Amino acid sequence: MKRGKFITFEGGEATGKSTQTKRLAERLQQAGIPVVVTREPGGTPVGEDVRELIMKDRPTDPVTELLLFAAARAEHMTSIIRPALDEGTWVISDRFIDSTRVYQGKLYGIERTFIEQLERFTVAPDYPDLTLILDVPANEGVERAQSRGTLSRYDAQRIETHEALREGFLEIATAEPQRCVLIDGYLPVASVETAVWQAVSAHLLAEAD
Amino acid sequence: MKRGKFITFEGGEATGKSTQTKRLAERLQQAGIPVVVTREPGGTPVGEDVRELIMKDRPTDPVTELLLFAAARAEHMTSIIRPALDEGTWVISDRFIDSTRVYQGKLYGIERTFIEQLERFTVAPDYPDLTLILDVPANEGVERAQSRGTLSRYDAQRIETHEALREGFLEIATAEPQRCVLIDGYLPVASVETAVWQAVSAHLLAEAD
Repeated sequence: MKRGKFITFEGGEATGKSTQTKRLAERLQQAGIPVVVTREPGGTPVGEDVRELIMKDRPTDPVTELLLFAAARAEHMTSIIRPALDEGTWVISDRFIDSTRVYQGKLYGIERTFIEQLERFTVAPDYPDLTLILDVPANEGVERAQSRGTLSRYDAQRIETHEALREGFLEIATAEPQRCVLIDGYLPVASVETAVWQAVSAHLLAEAD
Repeated sequence: MKRGKFITFEGGEATGKSTQTKRLAERLQQAGIPVVVTREPGGTPVGEDVRELIMKDRPTDPVTELLLFAAARAEHMTSIIRPALDEGTWVISDRFIDSTRVYQGKLYGIERTFIEQLERFTVAPDYPDLTLILDVPANEGVERAQSRGTLSRYDAQRIETHEALREGFLEIATAEPQRCVLIDGYLPVASVETAVWQAVSAHLLAEAD
């Protein structure tokens, strides 16, 4: 059986990841492709409980948070992502390794080599086939998050933080052009959806035939 | 101010670690040494919740468990152990890195280099000054656990598992004689207490003067 493809959506707060994750899943299903939609942290009981634990206990050490996310990811890979790919189902995850690289690496300054080691132990060899990075100017992201009243603790941070996050994602897009496609998330939702679909078609559907 | 000393108790199930942890703490306090007693996993809200999460969600991947324990340890170091040592308080932990090496490394076969990397990121440079490894024949450990009705999920495992755990701890004691003292936990509790106190006196109290 042909192995499924693994697609991730990445980007700062309120860049449209959840909306585009759903729309891409619908399009793929319409094209007759079986799809699993998931998210990080979360996607499994361990992941959902880790998410809750972080909100409740507020770890004082950024390394604690990094390791909790890594634990959730290991479980996510083993119990959801890898089995789906194995049986030919495509997987779309709302956030994945690049969020860790940017939030824990760039923002909190945890050593890059350690983050990469954790990736190797939790993800390899099943790195995403395609990563769609939704890019929105930092001030626009903050405004969107405020207007929908869903300020997460990251949303609540200063504009400089959002700039740093945006920069982090842009750096990844530049460093890994084979895997990453940068998409202008400032466009209307339908236009973003079209851009996402074009990227998926160009990168994955041709070879999936 | 003189930095506190860091002592850990290690060994399989029902080897007497908790009892000896308490008794050593009392002896040190009687000697006028300020002591913090703690345990792993646990010791902090994150640690206690990680302990609960593992019992509840039963991770399917041993790497998930390893990373959850590592996260709990990072928090433990940052919020309890390191601040105590810094202010001159001694710390006694019921289980620490050697339990991870033996349970996740030897028993579940996770790569040793990865476990050591995690130690470096969570513990270094504050490795234990002294580790007391309580050694009890595997069948005796199983019987003790059964008779007190506190069979953990590890206790419930077969005798071969207990043998492997015991071997793992013995290997560590042999490999790191500077840090580790092997103590016969099969002796009466008071004799074990004496042996523990002798080890602490010989290794730490002379130089602490």
